[in-house]
Amino acid sequence: MSVSDMTASETRPGDSRFFQRSGPFGLEQLAKASDSDVVAAASGKSVAAFRGVAPLHVAGPDEVSFLDNRRYLPLLAETKAGAVILSPAFSDKLPPDTAGLVCKAPYLAWARVATLFHPDPKSTGVRHPTAWIADDADIGENVEIGPFAVIGSGARIGRDTIVASHASIGQSVEIGSRCRIGAHAAISHARIGNRVTLYPGVRIGQDGFGFAVGPEGFETVPQLGLVVLEDGVEVGANSTIDRGSMRDTLIGAGTRIDNLVQIGHNARLGRCCIVVSQAGISGSTELGDFVTIAAQAGLIGHIKIGSKARIGAQCGVMSDVDAGADVIGSPAMPFREFFRNVATLRKLSRKSSD
Amino acid sequence: MSVSDMTASETRPGDSRFFQRSGPFGLEQLAKASDSDVVAAASGKSVAAFRGVAPLHVAGPDEVSFLDNRRYLPLLAETKAGAVILSPAFSDKLPPDTAGLVCKAPYLAWARVATLFHPDPKSTGVRHPTAWIADDADIGENVEIGPFAVIGSGARIGRDTIVASHASIGQSVEIGSRCRIGAHAAISHARIGNRVTLYPGVRIGQDGFGFAVGPEGFETVPQLGLVVLEDGVEVGANSTIDRGSMRDTLIGAGTRIDNLVQIGHNARLGRCCIVVSQAGISGSTELGDFVTIAAQAGLIGHIKIGSKARIGAQCGVMSDVDAGADVIGSPAMPFREFFRNVATLRKLSRKSSD
Amino acid sequence: MSVSDMTASETRPGDSRFFQRSGPFGLEQLAKASDSDVVAAASGKSVAAFRGVAPLHVAGPDEVSFLDNRRYLPLLAETKAGAVILSPAFSDKLPPDTAGLVCKAPYLAWARVATLFHPDPKSTGVRHPTAWIADDADIGENVEIGPFAVIGSGARIGRDTIVASHASIGQSVEIGSRCRIGAHAAISHARIGNRVTLYPGVRIGQDGFGFAVGPEGFETVPQLGLVVLEDGVEVGANSTIDRGSMRDTLIGAGTRIDNLVQIGHNARLGRCCIVVSQAGISGSTELGDFVTIAAQAGLIGHIKIGSKARIGAQCGVMSDVDAGADVIGSPAMPFREFFRNVATLRKLSRKSSD
Repeated sequence: MSVSDMTASETRPGDSRFFQRSGPFGLEQLAKASDSDVVAAASGKSVAAFRGVAPLHVAGPDEVSFLDNRRYLPLLAETKAGAVILSPAFSDKLPPDTAGLVCKAPYLAWARVATLFHPDPKSTGVRHPTAWIADDADIGENVEIGPFAVIGSGARIGRDTIVASHASIGQSVEIGSRCRIGAHAAISHARIGNRVTLYPGVRIGQDGFGFAVGPEGFETVPQLGLVVLEDGVEVGANSTIDRGSMRDTLIGAGTRIDNLVQIGHNARLGRCCIVVSQAGISGSTELGDFVTIAAQAGLIGHIKIGSKARIGAQCGVMSDVDAGADVIGSPAMPFREFFRNVATLRKLSRKSSD
Repeated sequence: MSVSDMTASETRPGDSRFFQRSGPFGLEQLAKASDSDVVAAASGKSVAAFRGVAPLHVAGPDEVSFLDNRRYLPLLAETKAGAVILSPAFSDKLPPDTAGLVCKAPYLAWARVATLFHPDPKSTGVRHPTAWIADDADIGENVEIGPFAVIGSGARIGRDTIVASHASIGQSVEIGSRCRIGAHAAISHARIGNRVTLYPGVRIGQDGFGFAVGPEGFETVPQLGLVVLEDGVEVGANSTIDRGSMRDTLIGAGTRIDNLVQIGHNARLGRCCIVVSQAGISGSTELGDFVTIAAQAGLIGHIKIGSKARIGAQCGVMSDVDAGADVIGSPAMPFREFFRNVATLRKLSRKSSD
Repeated sequence: MSVSDMTASETRPGDSRFFQRSGPFGLEQLAKASDSDVVAAASGKSVAAFRGVAPLHVAGPDEVSFLDNRRYLPLLAETKAGAVILSPAFSDKLPPDTAGLVCKAPYLAWARVATLFHPDPKSTGVRHPTAWIADDADIGENVEIGPFAVIGSGARIGRDTIVASHASIGQSVEIGSRCRIGAHAAISHARIGNRVTLYPGVRIGQDGFGFAVGPEGFETVPQLGLVVLEDGVEVGANSTIDRGSMRDTLIGAGTRIDNLVQIGHNARLGRCCIVVSQAGISGSTELGDFVTIAAQAGLIGHIKIGSKARIGAQCGVMSDVDAGADVIGSPAMPFREFFRNVATLRKLSRKSSD
C-alpha cells in the first residue's frame, strides 16, 4: 500500500474509540470559547449543533475547521465545513454555506475549540488493584493510578492527578495536582508542581553524569540535589532529566520539552521555554524565559542563554547567547552570519573547482 | 581485562542458552534455503550435517560461514568452515576442505541460512498469569502475553503475536498477527499491521508537540489523529512516534526504524524506508519509498523527500529533497558539493594561515 | 516564579528524605577518607562533628565544602563552612573560622567525602512479593528485587545486587555482584560484570539493526552475539546497546556511558571510556581505552578510535582516529584545523559581503 493510498482509509480525527468527545455545541458557544466573532454564512444557512472538528478537506456541515495559512485558501474555497476559524484577512473568502469564527489568533482559537470537543482525559479516581502503593504514601483525592504503577514510601500526589500504568514514583517524590504521569515514567529525587504532564518513558531524577578520576578509574561523585519541575511543565516521551549535584535541576513554569531530550544536572530552564526533540542541555547551563531550543541542538555546560533567545536546529552552542539573539550552526553564530557563510563557501568552492 | 583479551573468552554466536536453534541441515537443504549453487569441496570431503553458523575464523567443519567483502579473503583461506556462502567471484578461493554455497546475493543468502538455524522465537501462546488484560480486549489465537503486560479496553491483537513483559497496549489499539511487541513498549492511539516488530521501550501514539501561544503561556492543541504502522514495520529501542494532530502519522510497509529515533506528528514515511539511530523527522514531513535517513540526521517539518533519496549522517534537511538525490551537511547539499566545500575550506584556511 | 526566585526555596543538598546519610565525622576522619592534609582554622576554632556537605555559599559550620576553580574564590572568602577541600594553591585564602582539607585532587577528595556522608544505597536483600522470578533463576545472597521486576529462566544475579522496579532480566542473562539495575531496564542476551550500574530505561541486548535486501523488502539477519559489560561499567538513562551479530558487543571495564546514547551491534569500547549523552557509535566500530566521546557526536561503523583520543561534541567521525588525537567537526578534523576553518570562513564571508 503506498502512502497516498493509505490516506483514504485513515481514521477520522477524534475517533471516539480513542478520544473523549463532548458536545454538540452551538456557534455562539464556539465563538465564546474561542474569543471569536461570528460571521454568518452568506447563504443564510445556519447549523444548530456542531459535533466535532476536522480539517478543511474532510469537515462536513456539522463540523468546525480552521485556516491559518494562506496556502490552504484553495481548500477553504471547497470546504463543506459548517464553520471555519480564521483571521479577519480571510473572512471574505468563506464559501457561501460556511460561517466564520473570526479572530486574531486562529491557532489559539482552534486549540480551544478542539479542546471543547475533545477535553483532556479526566482522572477516574480509580486505583488499579495491581498497583503497589506504599502505606505511607500520601495520595490526594480523586487520583487515578494505573496497573502495575509503584508509589514509593513517603511520596505525595496531589488531587486529580493521573498516574499511568507501570509508572514508578520514588521515595519522597512530590507531585502536585492535575498532573498526568505517563506510562513507564520513572521519577525519583524530584518535586513536581501542578498541571505537569510527563509523557511515557521519561526519566526524572537519576544521578547526573558526575565522576572524578581516581587512581583506578572513575569514582562517582554523589549527586545530592533534586529535580524541580514547576507548574505546567511538559516533558516528552523518553526524555531524561538528571538531578542536580549540589543544587536542584530546575525547569521553569510552563516550559515544554519534547521527546528524547537530555537535560544535564544543575541545568536551569526559565519559564515557557521550548526544547524540541533530541536537543541536549549540558550540566549547569542556564536558560532565561521564553528561550527556544530547536531539534538536535546541543548546549555545552556552564553557559547562559538569555531570555527569548532562539537556538536553531542542530546548533552547537559553546558560549553564552544574548537575550533575544537568534543563533545557528556549530559552533553557534547569528542566523545571518551562518547563511552568509554557507553562500560564501559555495561561491568560493565553485570558483575553486572551475 | 583489555578488549583484546576479552575476545578469546566471548561466547560463540547463537549460544543455545540465549537463542533458538534448529537443524542439523544437509548442504542441499542449505542451498535450497539460500537459493545457492553447491560447489563441492576440492578435497572431496563432504559434511552430512551442518549444525550452525559462525564467522570464518571461528567456524568448524560442521558450521556454515560467509564472505561478502574482498578484505576478508585472508580469513577465507584459513577457515575450517565446512561450507561458505559467497559470490561466484570468490568461489575459486575456497580452501580444499570447504564447500561453497555460491550465489549473487551472499548477505541475503546468509540471512536465510542463519534464520534456518536460528528461527525467530515463536509465540508460546501463554498468557502470563500476572498480565492484566481488559475483559473486552479481543485477543487472537496463540498470542503470548508476558508478565505485567497491560492490554487495554477494546484492544485487538492478532494471532501468533508476542507481547513481552511490561508492555502497555492502550484502549482500542489494533495490532495485527505475528507481531513482536517488545518489553516496556507503550502503545496508544494506534493501528498496527501484521509482522510488525517493536523493540523494547518504543513509545507510539503519545501526543505530538503541539501548542498555541496564549496570554498566560502555551495552550495544548488536542492531537486527534493516530499512528498507523503498516505491515512489516520495525521500530528500534526507545524510539518515539507521535500520533497525528488532524490526520494519522503513517509508517509505510516494510520500513525499518532504528533506536532512539523521533518521528513527529503527521509525518508520513513510505515503504521500505530506513531510518538509522538518533535521526529525527519533524512534524508533517513526508518521505517517499526506499528513502534512507542516516544516523543523527534531522529533517525539519513540512518538507517532502523523494523516493530513493539518501540523507547522510548528521545531515540537516531544511527543504525538499528530490527523488534519488544524495544529500549531506547542515544545511543539506549534494554529497559532491559537501566534500568539495570541505576541501575548498581546508585549502583556503591553510593559505590564510601561511 | 522566576528561576532566580526558585533558588531560595530549593532543598538543601543531600536531603534525608531522598538520600542516605551517614556521620557525623571528625576532621581527621575526613582527611583520611580524602587523602588530605588538615590545615587548622586560623582563628583556632575547631569543629568536633561534621554532619554533611554543602556548596560554599550554603554550608554552615558543621558542613564541609570544596573549591576547585579560581572563579569561586569570592565565595570561599565568605563561606561559613567548617572545612573546605581545596588545593595547596588556595589554602592561604581560607577565611579565619574555616579549616582546610588540602590535597592535589580536590574533586576526587570531594567525591570521597561526599560518599562518606551519602553512601550509595545498599541492597536491602528484600525480594518484593510482586516480583516475578523464574524458578530456575540463580539469585545470589542479599539481592534486592523491586516491585514488578521480572527475572527470566536461567538468569544469574550475583550477591548484593539491586534490581529496581519493573526491570526485565531476560533468559540466561548473567549479572555480577554489587550491580544496580535501574527501574524499567530491559536486559536480554547479555553477560554483565560486577559493580555495573544501569540507569532507568536502558535497553541492552536487543537485535542490532541488521537486514539484507530481498526481492520483497528487507529480510532480518539473525543477531547471534551478546552484549558484554565488563566490571564497573555505567550506562545512562534510556541508552541502548544492541547485541552483536556474530560476535559480542563489548563495553570495557570502568567505561561510563551517559543518557540517550546508542551503541550499535559488534561495537567494542575499551576501558574507562567516556561517552556523553546523545552520542552514537555505529556497528563494529572499536574504541581503545580512555577514549572520550562528547555529547551528540556520531561515529560511523567499522572504524577504529585510538586510546585517549577525544571526539568533540557533535563531531561526525567518518574514518579512523589516532590514539591521543583531538578531533571535532563534521567531518571530523583536528581541533586546531576546525577552529582555523571557522575563523577563515568568517573572514572570507565578511570580505565577500563588503
